[in-house]
Amino acid sequence: MEGTRLDTARIRAARELIDPVFLDTPLYRWEALEPSLGCAVSVKLETANPVRSFKGRGTEVVARLLAERGQRAVVCASAGNLGQALAWSGRGRGLDVTVVASRFATEAKLDRIRALGARLELVDGDHESARERAAALAHRDGIRLLEDSLDLETCEGAATIGLELVEAAASFDTVLVALGGGALATGVGHVVKALAPGVEVVCVQPLGAPAMTRSWHERRVVTTETADTIADGVAGRYPIPAVLDDLLVVADDAVLVREASIIAGVRVLFADAGLVAEPSAALGIAAILENRDRFAGRHVVTIVCGGNVDPAAHRRWTGEAADRRP
Amino acid sequence: MEGTRLDTARIRAARELIDPVFLDTPLYRWEALEPSLGCAVSVKLETANPVRSFKGRGTEVVARLLAERGQRAVVCASAGNLGQALAWSGRGRGLDVTVVASRFATEAKLDRIRALGARLELVDGDHESARERAAALAHRDGIRLLEDSLDLETCEGAATIGLELVEAAASFDTVLVALGGGALATGVGHVVKALAPGVEVVCVQPLGAPAMTRSWHERRVVTTETADTIADGVAGRYPIPAVLDDLLVVADDAVLVREASIIAGVRVLFADAGLVAEPSAALGIAAILENRDRFAGRHVVTIVCGGNVDPAAHRRWTGEAADRRP
Repeated sequence: MEGTRLDTARIRAARELIDPVFLDTPLYRWEALEPSLGCAVSVKLETANPVRSFKGRGTEVVARLLAERGQRAVVCASAGNLGQALAWSGRGRGLDVTVVASRFATEAKLDRIRALGARLELVDGDHESARERAAALAHRDGIRLLEDSLDLETCEGAATIGLELVEAAASFDTVLVALGGGALATGVGHVVKALAPGVEVVCVQPLGAPAMTRSWHERRVVTTETADTIADGVAGRYPIPAVLDDLLVVADDAVLVREASIIAGVRVLFADAGLVAEPSAALGIAAILENRDRFAGRHVVTIVCGGNVDPAAHRRWTGEAADRRP
Repeated sequence: MEGTRLDTARIRAARELIDPVFLDTPLYRWEALEPSLGCAVSVKLETANPVRSFKGRGTEVVARLLAERGQRAVVCASAGNLGQALAWSGRGRGLDVTVVASRFATEAKLDRIRALGARLELVDGDHESARERAAALAHRDGIRLLEDSLDLETCEGAATIGLELVEAAASFDTVLVALGGGALATGVGHVVKALAPGVEVVCVQPLGAPAMTRSWHERRVVTTETADTIADGVAGRYPIPAVLDDLLVVADDAVLVREASIIAGVRVLFADAGLVAEPSAALGIAAILENRDRFAGRHVVTIVCGGNVDPAAHRRWTGEAADRRP
């Protein structure tokens, strides 16, 4: 794909750097979803691995390259999934990992970061405050700052999902991708547009955290004062210009969805597909629920990109559907 | 492995007959389970496929061979998972599939069998009544009766899980296998004993449906008057002599677990691993919970063999742990 920072050959090479436990994830059509959604739906499942999200694909690349260069430490800001994945990848290669997160981050994610042996620093404020603090720590200590979506390893690691999608036997009309910082969307989008350009790439973001989607539509960086969504994995406010440029090349559309639709998506994935998804991973289903006519009769693949959710919250979100059943 | 009806070369060949969507399923260590269980735990996940259980591995072999021989119809008795898998595999090859099930079977399973286009016949009584009726239908119509665990395709299809376990990078001390009719246990057990004989094969069955376990311990077929367990997938009462003979060769032990432990297993898999497991798929975790000393410090792999569960029941079983969390 011309015109993005990403490189298809380097993405293929990235596969070789990633622990196989994160690769070749399940991809299957789940017909039980289809009566309620009105289109053919395939699921790309990124939650059945040691960190329960796709982020391991990128952190494996980062940690491998750092270790090869003899570097010993790395710091990142994270809403929880990147930090958990970096902790896992870093531990296996003897790296000191520091994760900076908002103290309002999902507790289940913070618990796992600690359990994996990373140093966890909590900041007041939201994810953007964590990003500032992580940058300051990296500067102070002279260590690598891993910046999600800006650093190509995070995009190209995520892009290996795209390779698996385009190499699948089934052909899809549309790929629905959660949009936050943009690593997943630009990564998957790059590969799809390079290797299967007829497939539509639709990014999905919460109405409560719409900065990147607004930026895509206005073709310039738009920031927001607040980010208010249960989809904590995509709750940024300051889009990165270079990532927006890539997204402008690879995305066919970017849509916003309501919180109620995200909850409905989590519920549908649980009740009809037996999958525990965090809200960010239900954005694709939410987009179908809000745009039935648009997707009617099409074959849509949605990337269930993370499953790190507090059990009690999940229980609240899924309760209604479960109680309706016999 | 000498001494069973199964054949390792034929099991390797079976892999070629099975739709790849059922193969090379996720296998990963899930450390969050370990503090509560006291041993290293890896999960082999058989629920992320179009029928949400391992049974597709066997029905793919059956349906492929039937289609190659020009046969048009097949009937089976099922608690739900075999029927769903046979419906899926048969549909793809133009076979007429009839499934006989108890009218007390899990509704979610019966719904999926119907949705996949199979003819579903419900009988009063339990799974053993369904087996009798399926045999009568096959005799009457002159069509193939697929008998779970007796028919080698079901065992050798399941045995492909064993190939994936022994070929994994990690080495395990113990494989925990749900025990019902015996297809999964004899299949996986055969491969493990043939290719990694140092690995212990421990079968797990509910106390409320203990026929095969008692038979294994007494080395003769023991039937029971009743089968009373939430683990509907393993609730048989009449062990098949040929299957028992195989199990006597490959199993190192067979243990019984209480219903409360099975529920705790479902809860642990949900709350600590984000997995929706049906009760039969939680038998391995239940065995660890009841035998902590036995497994302490060992690396145990448990096959999460099915995820077809009524959402409302799952919600009841998982409620307590979820509500304990923040």
